[in-house]
Amino acid sequence: MPDKPSFVQRYVPILRWLPAYRRADLPQDLIAGVITAIMLVPQSMAYAQLGGLPPQVGLYATILPIAAYAILGTSGQLAVGPAAITSLAVLAGVGALAAPGTPRYLELVLALTLMVGIIKVALGIFRLGTVLNFVSAPVLSGFMSAAALVIIASQLKHLLGFNVAGKAVHDQLYDAVTHINKTNPVTLAIALTSILILVLFKSRAVKASLGKLGVPPRLRTLIGSLSLLLVLVLGTLVTATFRLDVAAGVKTVGVIPAGLPPLALPNFSLTDAGLLAPTALTIVFISVVESISIAKALASKHRQRIDPDQELIGLGAANLMASFSGAYPVAGGLARSVVNNEAGAMTGLASLVTAAMMAATLVFLTPLFYYLPQAVLASIVVVAVAGLFDLREARRLYHLQRSDFLTWLATFAVTLVFNIEVGILAGMVLSLLLFLWHTSRPKVVEIGRIPGTYIFKNVAHHDTQTSESVVALRVDESLYFANARYLEDRVLEVVAARPAVRHMVLHCSAINSVDTTAIETLQSLHDELRDAGVELHLASLKEWVLSRLERAGFVAAIGRDHIHRSMDEALKAIEAQAAISDR
Amino acid sequence: MPDKPSFVQRYVPILRWLPAYRRADLPQDLIAGVITAIMLVPQSMAYAQLGGLPPQVGLYATILPIAAYAILGTSGQLAVGPAAITSLAVLAGVGALAAPGTPRYLELVLALTLMVGIIKVALGIFRLGTVLNFVSAPVLSGFMSAAALVIIASQLKHLLGFNVAGKAVHDQLYDAVTHINKTNPVTLAIALTSILILVLFKSRAVKASLGKLGVPPRLRTLIGSLSLLLVLVLGTLVTATFRLDVAAGVKTVGVIPAGLPPLALPNFSLTDAGLLAPTALTIVFISVVESISIAKALASKHRQRIDPDQELIGLGAANLMASFSGAYPVAGGLARSVVNNEAGAMTGLASLVTAAMMAATLVFLTPLFYYLPQAVLASIVVVAVAGLFDLREARRLYHLQRSDFLTWLATFAVTLVFNIEVGILAGMVLSLLLFLWHTSRPKVVEIGRIPGTYIFKNVAHHDTQTSESVVALRVDESLYFANARYLEDRVLEVVAARPAVRHMVLHCSAINSVDTTAIETLQSLHDELRDAGVELHLASLKEWVLSRLERAGFVAAIGRDHIHRSMDEALKAIEAQAAISDR
Repeated sequence: MPDKPSFVQRYVPILRWLPAYRRADLPQDLIAGVITAIMLVPQSMAYAQLGGLPPQVGLYATILPIAAYAILGTSGQLAVGPAAITSLAVLAGVGALAAPGTPRYLELVLALTLMVGIIKVALGIFRLGTVLNFVSAPVLSGFMSAAALVIIASQLKHLLGFNVAGKAVHDQLYDAVTHINKTNPVTLAIALTSILILVLFKSRAVKASLGKLGVPPRLRTLIGSLSLLLVLVLGTLVTATFRLDVAAGVKTVGVIPAGLPPLALPNFSLTDAGLLAPTALTIVFISVVESISIAKALASKHRQRIDPDQELIGLGAANLMASFSGAYPVAGGLARSVVNNEAGAMTGLASLVTAAMMAATLVFLTPLFYYLPQAVLASIVVVAVAGLFDLREARRLYHLQRSDFLTWLATFAVTLVFNIEVGILAGMVLSLLLFLWHTSRPKVVEIGRIPGTYIFKNVAHHDTQTSESVVALRVDESLYFANARYLEDRVLEVVAARPAVRHMVLHCSAINSVDTTAIETLQSLHDELRDAGVELHLASLKEWVLSRLERAGFVAAIGRDHIHRSMDEALKAIEAQAAISDR
Repeated sequence: MPDKPSFVQRYVPILRWLPAYRRADLPQDLIAGVITAIMLVPQSMAYAQLGGLPPQVGLYATILPIAAYAILGTSGQLAVGPAAITSLAVLAGVGALAAPGTPRYLELVLALTLMVGIIKVALGIFRLGTVLNFVSAPVLSGFMSAAALVIIASQLKHLLGFNVAGKAVHDQLYDAVTHINKTNPVTLAIALTSILILVLFKSRAVKASLGKLGVPPRLRTLIGSLSLLLVLVLGTLVTATFRLDVAAGVKTVGVIPAGLPPLALPNFSLTDAGLLAPTALTIVFISVVESISIAKALASKHRQRIDPDQELIGLGAANLMASFSGAYPVAGGLARSVVNNEAGAMTGLASLVTAAMMAATLVFLTPLFYYLPQAVLASIVVVAVAGLFDLREARRLYHLQRSDFLTWLATFAVTLVFNIEVGILAGMVLSLLLFLWHTSRPKVVEIGRIPGTYIFKNVAHHDTQTSESVVALRVDESLYFANARYLEDRVLEVVAARPAVRHMVLHCSAINSVDTTAIETLQSLHDELRDAGVELHLASLKEWVLSRLERAGFVAAIGRDHIHRSMDEALKAIEAQAAISDR
């Protein structure tokens, strides 16, 4: 899109691509839209069940929200809809305020969805999307790993067919094991069969065999996406044929009200909003980072660009629509979006097709789900989230960067033991504190000249030329209030240890910025060194660092002849000065 | 001290300097110790009054605490004792839990002092003193400016001689103005005269005149220090002679119990400790940074080095001793320390002399203070803190760095309007958030070759040579989770805007570190660029950044031939590659 979009086009991306829509893209968008819808029918009901909501709420989340994203989002491939982690967050957050299944629960979910939408739209309009970058990858990974375990434990009751008690993972596991004799064997059989089918379709071995049979890669991915439909159809047929709901006590989805979602504004108080705020923020933090990463990865395959702030507006609008149409929070889903892309989605039209298909499902097909066993939906959830539990990532972090591993572990443990909101918050705060702690103790190494060159290197690692009276230190961090005094201490330590030193040269090329505290500290360092008979020199300053030092009066204080363009020039100037004073 | 200190000497610095004590230093240390004591007598009583404590508590704070610091501290010049800001913090923190003057108030002050001592010693032993660097200069300055106003408002009742009501500054001012007719005119006259004398002695004009009379600079400073003694003696003589306490209702210090401080362990509950914790932390943060700066500045004049962690142990021990001897929190004072230094203090012996003098004062001289007017002490406090109110610093920050000005203003306003603990906390949090926000949006500029050189500069500021198919970007910040995705967005934005681009070179010399999130983002950037037909190159990587990229497998992913030692080599490699593929 080389043309600069107009003001309206900037905020309503559909007005960029729809007027220029190419007829050649139509078949691809149609097929992708239909295939994504086929995946969404079982998925949306499964995630709604995870979120403590009736199945139609999941289906409602796939009509107006998806259409809103198609109009306002910037990705032609991102498949918006219910997602596992946001569903868990809804259950954990709203479940603490009202019992799932009650009208109050649904009311609070709608309020929560409205808040999620408002926060996202606001972040997008004020172009504050970068605050979401403060969730680091280890925090997200540790969180997801713990969330996967929490989700699987929450599905035990559907998989085993009896009411597993407890909220925490260990309570649920304990209860499931101690009451294992209450298991409904038919339900368990349905669940295990479904899981087996879903895992087989996902497995590389099966994909490789299909490849050997000459099935092209794109088609293989599409076959994989049909597994959800397959377990849905199989489970429903078997249950309906043998009336397992009556004969064996298999719990099924039951009656789903037919027809399009009801339109209404959510009804809630300011007190509710306050209670829901932490959950809303958690959902925003965990869903946006993930959605935008997916959108970016897919967009670049088409050499398109995702505007993260407009993306927030699109996702926010989707949630607002969800809130107005009896649904619950939506986000971009990875598996769905990959299928959407491989099926050929070129523009948001694919999403509009999906939304239309979902509407048709709600109007015509809901009676077909009467005999769908809840165990099948639980199996879909379990297989979807199992891959999120990622111990390999923890091991990788352990070997690569200990502080990131610590963050992963803390986020994982707090999320698993306490609750998911505290987990993500603890991880964010810890990662920021570790970063600050790291920058507060910058590397300060002594450097010396590699003989016969302009090059100055760490004296500990290289054969270098140094002098009794001149010390050169390299500072490998921007200077700000939290580390300037640390630098001052290191410099004074060196000077105190070497009484012969007369010149201290700081090599500043790695200093990207200085704040006023750092300038003040440099000033007091200069005074202290002067009192000790040592001259301070700065070499290789960046332009804007130098200009700030100038404006602060530090250059005048230290003397312009003590600022040098390079280490080499600094040493030459010092030698020349020494030669004059020797004469 | 070129010899490496032994283990014991490291933690007990007096064992370093006392065995090697030179007789020639003795007269200097003696004189400095006596002069500092002369200053401390009125000062310690004045600050105790500010802290809501009886005068003897201030005097107690000058015996064992000063001796403890002389034994364990590393500065021979720092004059420890009561300080204005810590006294205010005591009044604000403990005053919220108990009424000044009650036994419960004193009990809590002793508990607070113990906590301050324990925190300082612990920070020193675990070498965690750098956490205190997280208080930036603007936070400290904004805090001090507000604290000065709070202190002056709190002294109005002593200066005007009637009970000014209210806790907040504006309440006290309003009450003082509306009840100005209740002023005790004699008290006010004593206060104004004292303030006039103190200001005159401090003024540059007077010092300059003394200079013209041939008084050497050192003696001038010492004369200045006698002003406190002068107002004390004058105020006491006038009040005693005319019995102003009875005749005019001038409030005086009254009976001070004679004798050395009582030794006892403080008696308090865990609940008290919890309530006092914020105040204890505030006192640690505000007093240590200030004390250590003073010690450093004076030490370098003697080419000595201050070990900040040992300094924490020394200051902590001083507070522990204060808590055991019926006193209250102590810190290093600027004015006192400067006088101590100018009077010739060479070692901690000067402090030991001061402590002995103060003990003698308590044993023999307390009856002399019976007629000392409280207005004189308040005048000493007001003149001491007036200089802390520093609007000029705010103006300087405004012109130098807007974010630091904002921090100053927020700290100032919150401290003034709410309370001092919230003020320092708000300032710290805001300054950290602003720093993080700043690093989360790194400068990313396009660079081009200055024709005919190896030098690459910002294309916006220099005439440079660029190419249609190659873009070079310079990243001026270390990469970590909060900014890596921002960089990714900027790069993808550039690529999306220029369809002809085939190579993207990132110039990485200003990247001091990368964390695992940044590596992951670089990996997805590489994938996204590859999908868009653009090759990613990295140039001028720091050694340890490169080695971390290697360990993470990123070098293998991008290809070792896409890592270049310099921009020049990167462009040459790209040209050579293009030449091959053209053939």
